[in-house]
Amino acid sequence: MRILYHWPLDPFSRMTRLALAEKRLTFKLSRVEHTDDPAKLLALNPAGTPPVLQDDSGAISIVVAGARPILEYLDEAREAAPLLPTDIVGRAEVRRLVDWFCVKFHAEVNAYILHERLEKPLIGGGSPDASVMREGRTHLRWHMAHINHLIASRDWLAGTALTQADIVAAAQLSCLDYLGEVPWDEFTLTKSWYGRFKSRPSFRALLADILPGMTPASHYADLDF
Amino acid sequence: MRILYHWPLDPFSRMTRLALAEKRLTFKLSRVEHTDDPAKLLALNPAGTPPVLQDDSGAISIVVAGARPILEYLDEAREAAPLLPTDIVGRAEVRRLVDWFCVKFHAEVNAYILHERLEKPLIGGGSPDASVMREGRTHLRWHMAHINHLIASRDWLAGTALTQADIVAAAQLSCLDYLGEVPWDEFTLTKSWYGRFKSRPSFRALLADILPGMTPASHYADLDF
Repeated sequence: MRILYHWPLDPFSRMTRLALAEKRLTFKLSRVEHTDDPAKLLALNPAGTPPVLQDDSGAISIVVAGARPILEYLDEAREAAPLLPTDIVGRAEVRRLVDWFCVKFHAEVNAYILHERLEKPLIGGGSPDASVMREGRTHLRWHMAHINHLIASRDWLAGTALTQADIVAAAQLSCLDYLGEVPWDEFTLTKSWYGRFKSRPSFRALLADILPGMTPASHYADLDF
Repeated sequence: MRILYHWPLDPFSRMTRLALAEKRLTFKLSRVEHTDDPAKLLALNPAGTPPVLQDDSGAISIVVAGARPILEYLDEAREAAPLLPTDIVGRAEVRRLVDWFCVKFHAEVNAYILHERLEKPLIGGGSPDASVMREGRTHLRWHMAHINHLIASRDWLAGTALTQADIVAAAQLSCLDYLGEVPWDEFTLTKSWYGRFKSRPSFRALLADILPGMTPASHYADLDF
């Protein structure tokens, strides 16, 4: 049995849900609420944050904490449906993009938009600050222009196959898309890449997420958006 | 020939310097200045940040951008002096700690102390804010208490051998130590672990770093601090 401890609109949790589904591994989702006893999550991950994967399906029972450790673990534990190329140049390119979307995108977009719209209300920090939101939206456009640039010469972000790079980027965008924050029509190549990914079975569970008190954008689950 | 593009007091650059040296790989350092033409670095890494490793030493010439991609690359490219264990449980534990020090430590300590003392002067942002510095120093103590907790039952952070986890944590602390920010005497287990690492040949080049206009703390290069 595999259990993934996650939070629905956490991009890092979503990366691991997509990766598990692309690897065609069965797993149970266990939702971590910010109102939960923190000791529950701290016992699994001393950093106190989702995602955490508890995997008792093999000979060895293992707990893997953190999105990138989980992505690396899944590719090492199961060869089928690889999400990293086998050649070192290809692996470096995928990991460069994983770094980009986990670090740079996170600092330049999430820290603005997701912080203002998701984290602030949760911690009682008041309503979103318009100037912060504006800055985050500007940064989001830079990143979408970068995805457009990559997709102009590649089938998927890192080359000819879907990899961890697509998973990490799409997980990030999917949270913003739930909130109606993604200007798809300004970036048609990015839109067509995301649309292809969104149509895959691995994406279905994400599209079914509903947060209480927070309705997704009307096109969020629409495959023909 | 291997060239590492780096910045001396960037913890992410330092991680890769330590890893290259622990793997006993020869390399040339090329220092990237914030006053350099950004096009030079952007050509190597579109994210525009060090570290970047250009490795023409093997059959295939490769450019690897980003600290964690470089760490994974080095362990895949060269089996000798492994910095990741071979078993999946051990690998997950190392990567959990790499995540901890690259993400959590970075957000809770660097974003306060290194930002105030290194980045603000570079961008003309004025002198450090005392309340931000105080908060960063409180966070640093939490992290040192966590290292103490790990070292109480382990030789190295992730178990019996030196791994990427030690490299990433020591690289972070070494930048703060240059600035005299580390309260070593409050955390004796952390101090003895760091002292052991600091005495290894891989650390020597870091201890010789001198930044113009910024003298290191008097004990910085002292092996008996």
